[in-house]
Amino acid sequence: MNTQVEIVTIGDELLIGQVVDTNSAWMGQQLNLAGFTVNRITSVSDNKHEILSILKETTERSAIVLVTGGLGPTRDDITKKCLCEFFNTRLILNQDVLADIQCFLKGRVTHINPLNHDQALVPEKCTIIRNPIGTAPIMWFNSNSGVVVSMPGVPSEMKRAMEIEIIPRLKKTFINQAILHKTIHIFNIPEAVLAEKLTHWEDNIPSDIKVAYLPSPGKIRLRLTGKGADSVFLQNHINKAINDLYPIIGENIYGFDNEPVEASILKLLSNQKSTLSCAESCSGGYMAHLLTSIAGASQVFKGSVVAYANEIKTGLLGVSNTDIETFGAVSCQVVEQMALGACKTFNTDYAIATSGIAGPSGGTEEKPVGTVWIAWAANGKVISQKFQFGNNRERTILRTAETGLILLKQFIENNKI
Amino acid sequence: MNTQVEIVTIGDELLIGQVVDTNSAWMGQQLNLAGFTVNRITSVSDNKHEILSILKETTERSAIVLVTGGLGPTRDDITKKCLCEFFNTRLILNQDVLADIQCFLKGRVTHINPLNHDQALVPEKCTIIRNPIGTAPIMWFNSNSGVVVSMPGVPSEMKRAMEIEIIPRLKKTFINQAILHKTIHIFNIPEAVLAEKLTHWEDNIPSDIKVAYLPSPGKIRLRLTGKGADSVFLQNHINKAINDLYPIIGENIYGFDNEPVEASILKLLSNQKSTLSCAESCSGGYMAHLLTSIAGASQVFKGSVVAYANEIKTGLLGVSNTDIETFGAVSCQVVEQMALGACKTFNTDYAIATSGIAGPSGGTEEKPVGTVWIAWAANGKVISQKFQFGNNRERTILRTAETGLILLKQFIENNKI
Repeated sequence: MNTQVEIVTIGDELLIGQVVDTNSAWMGQQLNLAGFTVNRITSVSDNKHEILSILKETTERSAIVLVTGGLGPTRDDITKKCLCEFFNTRLILNQDVLADIQCFLKGRVTHINPLNHDQALVPEKCTIIRNPIGTAPIMWFNSNSGVVVSMPGVPSEMKRAMEIEIIPRLKKTFINQAILHKTIHIFNIPEAVLAEKLTHWEDNIPSDIKVAYLPSPGKIRLRLTGKGADSVFLQNHINKAINDLYPIIGENIYGFDNEPVEASILKLLSNQKSTLSCAESCSGGYMAHLLTSIAGASQVFKGSVVAYANEIKTGLLGVSNTDIETFGAVSCQVVEQMALGACKTFNTDYAIATSGIAGPSGGTEEKPVGTVWIAWAANGKVISQKFQFGNNRERTILRTAETGLILLKQFIENNKI
Repeated sequence: MNTQVEIVTIGDELLIGQVVDTNSAWMGQQLNLAGFTVNRITSVSDNKHEILSILKETTERSAIVLVTGGLGPTRDDITKKCLCEFFNTRLILNQDVLADIQCFLKGRVTHINPLNHDQALVPEKCTIIRNPIGTAPIMWFNSNSGVVVSMPGVPSEMKRAMEIEIIPRLKKTFINQAILHKTIHIFNIPEAVLAEKLTHWEDNIPSDIKVAYLPSPGKIRLRLTGKGADSVFLQNHINKAINDLYPIIGENIYGFDNEPVEASILKLLSNQKSTLSCAESCSGGYMAHLLTSIAGASQVFKGSVVAYANEIKTGLLGVSNTDIETFGAVSCQVVEQMALGACKTFNTDYAIATSGIAGPSGGTEEKPVGTVWIAWAANGKVISQKFQFGNNRERTILRTAETGLILLKQFIENNKI
């Protein structure tokens, strides 16, 4: 069956670059996971001619067309009118939608104005999917050539509709096999080296399992996708493939699926009833930010000292001034004292400390820009490692914070600390 | 003259959602500023049929087609071959490009492999724009219908080529008037209220100046664009319009053009030879992260205490335990003591402190989720304000940090602290 999808995002703000179209990437990811192939993404402006053209082009090419945007109450949003014209239908009042709008706006506005009231006018020929978290409903059109679905461009509304309604319905109509995924998070190994190490492993994977490499700075996600009639069978194949990975690159695996490492660490420490603090020089508060972005972090995370100035490293973290002068702030000696100091200052079981040269200035021949020391302390013990993260300041900050968290997780799991 | 542009981004990674297409938004913004209109953005896969189709479609519709991606050395990158087929030309070795590739890869690889060598093969019929920061050159094709430019998808390479080469060349060919922009950053006023206050001001703006509202959470950018024959004339009109804004919303203006507030603050304090520290509870290190993302921050910024636990507020920042018990950690009393404590602990001239309920849990009827106190201290004096940032954790963290920095800038500029 044809499972080709086109995504159309509508909005002037996309074309003048005021807003980055993150909807398409998210939709592409979810559709791909569900077994569909996205073969084109198009952004057009809130212009009748443009919208009608793209509807004609996409429905001629592809069985499934998913449209976001242009459904707001204001005059510039014309997607609904264009859909009516395209599908040769008219707008009628839908009482359910009106009730949803009234319910959603209750307490937010003093009265429903005519613009919001008109959002309850929907094309006669379409199936309505209700939207409890916004004022624009989702419109599902069946045509000779396939399906056109129009949904709001607000990411939270689009995502809810896609997850709960649209993808399940599309799967039911277009997909007739089981699809399973497992993503393995791998770290500290270049893509080419990983691919070489995994040649034999890949050769021995059953043909119903496909492997994809998804690299990002310092990390690679390895995605296994199984497609077939029997999901139990597929799951066994995937499990076996993962078990076979451990003898080859077990020490580089740090996580699975969609959980970010900061969430894994907090869960791990929460289960242990342990606490964590940080002492951050070159990561500059970003590690604390990653941790505190997770709801409930305060159960485990006590805080961080962002010690940009040396006198803070000595004053708040008890680093020896002589050692800073002898070895420099970016050194094994100083970063280990920072980690031990954080454990003491915050009275925590674990601490991570960072010290490095994020650049662009401050590098020397011996310690070039990108040199970073990270230390991990627990129960009076401390270990540290040196890294070279290159000369991009933003990336060095990011990789320092992530590496600190990933390795803490590994050290705890492998009883190395 | 037709100044309509289409952007085409090529890459399987865009369609499966592994990578968000940020190139198009950046290009749209820059093209818009330069006086061009982007009328469509299309993403297609690394597939010959798809690439040839989109080249045909776009060149039939638009005078200027800008293409990114698919120029890497590996087998899956086929944009160059497709361009050859489309423009009916062949690949020839370009010695300048080969020299550039050798120069770029020197020190990075032991030898130039055949794949990189082949990147010096370029279509005979195009103009080559050299790329000193990567291995793929930029290819400029003139056709009967207009211009097609193909450039690498790596954002840094694309941006450099657009800024230094492509936009200036396009302007020379297609734009015959002066275009000036000024962006005013406005804060702490809802869009609808701002629009109402500015009605009379907008009515009195000369017709060669256009106004655009670009809202984002808690902030609005007001962009003035002047188009005309005489740039001195336009500049005067823009300056007058800005001067006229001050009596109406002067207290809401906090910056201009592309400088983020964290950079403005560091510059302002650096000029004063002043220093800054933070004490962050609900912003969780994000304020320190914003500041330390700016190169050279260490001249001004001494550090931050991320005080998630109450005992850190008392221990490191000298907050009164009794006051925490009496008023709660999210209170005027506590946040002011945090700010004064940070000045003392870090020995800085200025300090910003935050304390709030980021949620989703921890809210009460009196202090619902989103309640945030921010305090600013200088020379033993302190002021504080209460905010309500709503129930989205991520947004509350972001708005707390930004508001702390924006208001510090305003307080210093208006001698309020």
